[in-house]
Amino acid sequence: MDRKQVLDGETAPGGRQPAPDRHAPAVVLGPTRYGKAEVRIVRVTRGAAEHALKDLNVSIALSGDQADTHLTGDNAKVLTTDAQKNAVYALAKRHGVASAEQFALLLAQHFLTTCPYITHARIGIEEYGWDRIPGAESRHSFVRGGRETRTALVHADADGASRVVSGLKDLVVLNTAGSEFHGFYEDEYTTLAETSDRVLATAIDARWRRGGAAGEPDWDKSYARARAALMTAFADTHSLSLQQTLYAMGRRLLEHDDAIAEARLTLPNRHHVAVDLAPFGLTNDNEVFHAADRPYGLIEGSLARRGEPPDPAAWQ
Amino acid sequence: MDRKQVLDGETAPGGRQPAPDRHAPAVVLGPTRYGKAEVRIVRVTRGAAEHALKDLNVSIALSGDQADTHLTGDNAKVLTTDAQKNAVYALAKRHGVASAEQFALLLAQHFLTTCPYITHARIGIEEYGWDRIPGAESRHSFVRGGRETRTALVHADADGASRVVSGLKDLVVLNTAGSEFHGFYEDEYTTLAETSDRVLATAIDARWRRGGAAGEPDWDKSYARARAALMTAFADTHSLSLQQTLYAMGRRLLEHDDAIAEARLTLPNRHHVAVDLAPFGLTNDNEVFHAADRPYGLIEGSLARRGEPPDPAAWQ
Amino acid sequence: MDRKQVLDGETAPGGRQPAPDRHAPAVVLGPTRYGKAEVRIVRVTRGAAEHALKDLNVSIALSGDQADTHLTGDNAKVLTTDAQKNAVYALAKRHGVASAEQFALLLAQHFLTTCPYITHARIGIEEYGWDRIPGAESRHSFVRGGRETRTALVHADADGASRVVSGLKDLVVLNTAGSEFHGFYEDEYTTLAETSDRVLATAIDARWRRGGAAGEPDWDKSYARARAALMTAFADTHSLSLQQTLYAMGRRLLEHDDAIAEARLTLPNRHHVAVDLAPFGLTNDNEVFHAADRPYGLIEGSLARRGEPPDPAAWQ
Amino acid sequence: MDRKQVLDGETAPGGRQPAPDRHAPAVVLGPTRYGKAEVRIVRVTRGAAEHALKDLNVSIALSGDQADTHLTGDNAKVLTTDAQKNAVYALAKRHGVASAEQFALLLAQHFLTTCPYITHARIGIEEYGWDRIPGAESRHSFVRGGRETRTALVHADADGASRVVSGLKDLVVLNTAGSEFHGFYEDEYTTLAETSDRVLATAIDARWRRGGAAGEPDWDKSYARARAALMTAFADTHSLSLQQTLYAMGRRLLEHDDAIAEARLTLPNRHHVAVDLAPFGLTNDNEVFHAADRPYGLIEGSLARRGEPPDPAAWQ
Repeated sequence: MDRKQVLDGETAPGGRQPAPDRHAPAVVLGPTRYGKAEVRIVRVTRGAAEHALKDLNVSIALSGDQADTHLTGDNAKVLTTDAQKNAVYALAKRHGVASAEQFALLLAQHFLTTCPYITHARIGIEEYGWDRIPGAESRHSFVRGGRETRTALVHADADGASRVVSGLKDLVVLNTAGSEFHGFYEDEYTTLAETSDRVLATAIDARWRRGGAAGEPDWDKSYARARAALMTAFADTHSLSLQQTLYAMGRRLLEHDDAIAEARLTLPNRHHVAVDLAPFGLTNDNEVFHAADRPYGLIEGSLARRGEPPDPAAWQ
Repeated sequence: MDRKQVLDGETAPGGRQPAPDRHAPAVVLGPTRYGKAEVRIVRVTRGAAEHALKDLNVSIALSGDQADTHLTGDNAKVLTTDAQKNAVYALAKRHGVASAEQFALLLAQHFLTTCPYITHARIGIEEYGWDRIPGAESRHSFVRGGRETRTALVHADADGASRVVSGLKDLVVLNTAGSEFHGFYEDEYTTLAETSDRVLATAIDARWRRGGAAGEPDWDKSYARARAALMTAFADTHSLSLQQTLYAMGRRLLEHDDAIAEARLTLPNRHHVAVDLAPFGLTNDNEVFHAADRPYGLIEGSLARRGEPPDPAAWQ
Repeated sequence: MDRKQVLDGETAPGGRQPAPDRHAPAVVLGPTRYGKAEVRIVRVTRGAAEHALKDLNVSIALSGDQADTHLTGDNAKVLTTDAQKNAVYALAKRHGVASAEQFALLLAQHFLTTCPYITHARIGIEEYGWDRIPGAESRHSFVRGGRETRTALVHADADGASRVVSGLKDLVVLNTAGSEFHGFYEDEYTTLAETSDRVLATAIDARWRRGGAAGEPDWDKSYARARAALMTAFADTHSLSLQQTLYAMGRRLLEHDDAIAEARLTLPNRHHVAVDLAPFGLTNDNEVFHAADRPYGLIEGSLARRGEPPDPAAWQ
Repeated sequence: MDRKQVLDGETAPGGRQPAPDRHAPAVVLGPTRYGKAEVRIVRVTRGAAEHALKDLNVSIALSGDQADTHLTGDNAKVLTTDAQKNAVYALAKRHGVASAEQFALLLAQHFLTTCPYITHARIGIEEYGWDRIPGAESRHSFVRGGRETRTALVHADADGASRVVSGLKDLVVLNTAGSEFHGFYEDEYTTLAETSDRVLATAIDARWRRGGAAGEPDWDKSYARARAALMTAFADTHSLSLQQTLYAMGRRLLEHDDAIAEARLTLPNRHHVAVDLAPFGLTNDNEVFHAADRPYGLIEGSLARRGEPPDPAAWQ
């Protein structure tokens, strides 16, 4: 047992360090956060004619005056993660889930007001889509739709400021034409052949941040528009590199919604390698591909509307 | 090194044991199989107006006169798994991929004829669906569609007999009404409350076997019909138990396609637990659910057309 | 709603079909089973000097007179999967968990006696290993040890018969020497180069069945002995093929424990491909390998003690 | 096709925006990075008496003057991710892999010197541990050891500055005693019972940064010391909250190695819920637990040596 060991620590709220004195410990506590992660909630709206549902995975991370529990185990300022979980369910009952973004904002405000020792709330939500089962008479029957996950990330402070980043991940797309790659830099380890016709495939991970001046949109419509912009830009851009496609996708995203200030995209290059069939007397006219797992190229980039100040804290 | 150890073994083709003699080893080799697993192939068909693609994960398991390599390391009868992989790519080039089932049959026949020491071929294929990107001008652009995986399993013998099992897995469906569960057996550990209104959700894993007399269908149409039958039966069956729903789904499957002789379904009961909100002064009218991970109920059942003989070897 | 649809079905216990009559439905119910899957239980034994623990994942599948719930939704013969879960916890409290096999046998007997409509129980258990934390003063502190999962599978009938299959999976091993592969069959798609020195790696999946006459062993000691036999046979066999290594491992297993009647091994060939460094003026003397994901060879084989009758039902 | 669309963009290196003019596009390119991810390499050292190996998963992310490829598809400044992969293998051959950190530093320097358009390199490495197979005669046979993954992250600039963060993840530990949780803040949604005896379990994710003045250590010894410090602090800290345990672990880490300037820990609270056995007339004296999957508490915290300046860029 070394309970004593952790009692003589000393905190530094916000990572600031107190003035040194000769009794000061050598190790100081920096920024912390905590919360309940992956609360899996399904919220059903039971209409007379038909039901609807929202299927969410909610993760909460709170911060504030929390040094005591770290340094001494005094939990008087700790809102339990169990109570956080309960709040997710209770607020979904009281207010419904209009959208992932709106629900995240609601939760953030709740945590900032329910406990005085919490001064910042980060709410991350994953949403899984459902469609009505085609051909069924039932109006309360659903099938998981699409492979992508919709995401929402809210940061909110006790002073009332909040930031919203919307997004999606695992939206898997592929072009069988319209992709080239050549004219690249060559060093001593460059052996790749140039190509003017390749398969281009990726799993889109895109996030976009609303500008501070923009009011609250219809989040579901905004999401549908962004998703369509990303997909059609991927499809209809003649690509000389996945980097170029990334920029075209981000640009389309910002051009289709004036309220978006900034976007970040992460695009794995899911290599589809044309198989060499020459040993078997066959020509492979870009018809037969090996879909490789690892390694893969990974292209990351950000775009911003001109004049919009960056807001790095919104993305963390 | 104990190379000697494995040299004095003795095989028993098909698991049959040779007559014992005083020099016989105590351990005999039983049934074996081997092959290349998870060959990830994308086959593109490049039409003038538009492209199409098939995205498959092919696993091969061959058996036959293979005891030598096990007992002595003599590989003269071993068709390498590398050559098996090459054959997948070459045959896809030569013949295209009309459907998962047809390609599996083609591969099986190839392996049975290319190497005299192979007398049985098992080809398992997973197929991943792709849709055209909506709203795009491009006719060579695709997005992964649906969450389910289509499956095909072929067994073929050197004597020409073959069996086909089609199927799907991970087709996730959910009913928010029309599901009850009560009147069950009660033992000393039974504490579950009866309910006349619950969420019923599952990830459908269904396989179906064609009868011997049935000719080759349009496999893609047959699949679409089976998928629809499973989903609509799930949706439109008022359920007193997931067992009842399983039977209704299997029955619908067989009634919608006379060529199906037998079906097997595996349905996890993805429990959605109505959250107790009473401690917070709230009533939960089946609106707020916790989507649980584990444990889960697992219901498995088979159905057959009357008079059809079973064929257990087809499913392995 | 088609509640009526499922009411006029007709069962065939054990898959046997009733005599046809002109009102008989066209679809008959075959074999079924059901139960709670993946009950995650940690059982702690709190000794005065130190604690011990068993960490299990228990899956139950029961069968018997269960046609009513499938055909009509009458659940009077259904022991709920919730009660099954409760039994896992209660029996672990009452009797402790001596070993995975012993606990599976205990559970099977419980289900066969607690509900008259259950005539067969299948209990599958995964066990995760823990070691004491090295260097700690605490005698109640543990770290997950090893990467493999221990498995136990019990089948038991109401008439008292039971079968036990023990095993392990995901035991990842690798030899950097002592592995060759050459002299194989060559067909038109064979391009693989022969090698007299390669890396051989696999993730051992092995199962072994005790003979009927063998009494109950010390299951934990038996497991440790089997695990050591598999690993040392892999290490110390000079390999001309993974098939040969498989046989050597199975043989070692049976030779090290007279009570084992039969073994089944599944060995993925985790290809480690020597990278071609010639384009960079370097020679790769089997020092630099690409560890490939997919595809992979998959070798499966069974071995039996001479004179032991096979028991295929034990493995399902 | 909208190739034109992406040609009239305009870059802003480092995210800085050019002076606006009336022809300036509305969307500017911000920070980017790219590289080959998840290069799986096994490097064998073939000694006369025995072999040794390093098993790594290397991910590269480079940045610099890369706007052209994004804005116009001109790849003249792009070092291909394929060449990056080749460099991993070639450098491993040339120099060996002394440690994950040393190899990451080597790779970073390589990329900064091989292509003038790369001004920053981020190398992330995961390392998987192997032990010799116990009881084997072979000195070239290994078994994957432990469940944790060792991590190394290097950032390096063209001007010669570099930062190293070492770490581990998925080191799963559990205390069956010595853990309490009570005296917490109570809001309207707080229903959790206080406890003075609970199971405490987590999967340690810890990273630690070396101070700028510290020279290069023996990285493997440094890692072993850090791993031991984390585990023993977890085991031997009497815990009033997982927050307190986190601080104790971080503090022990910094106190055991003067060269560590800062540490970050992420600890999921893997809830082990004592099962209520009262309905069955049984008392659960903290012997029978349900190991829950989701949701889980997640505690994150950082600690720094007094006087050490923070270095947020090192962790990204």
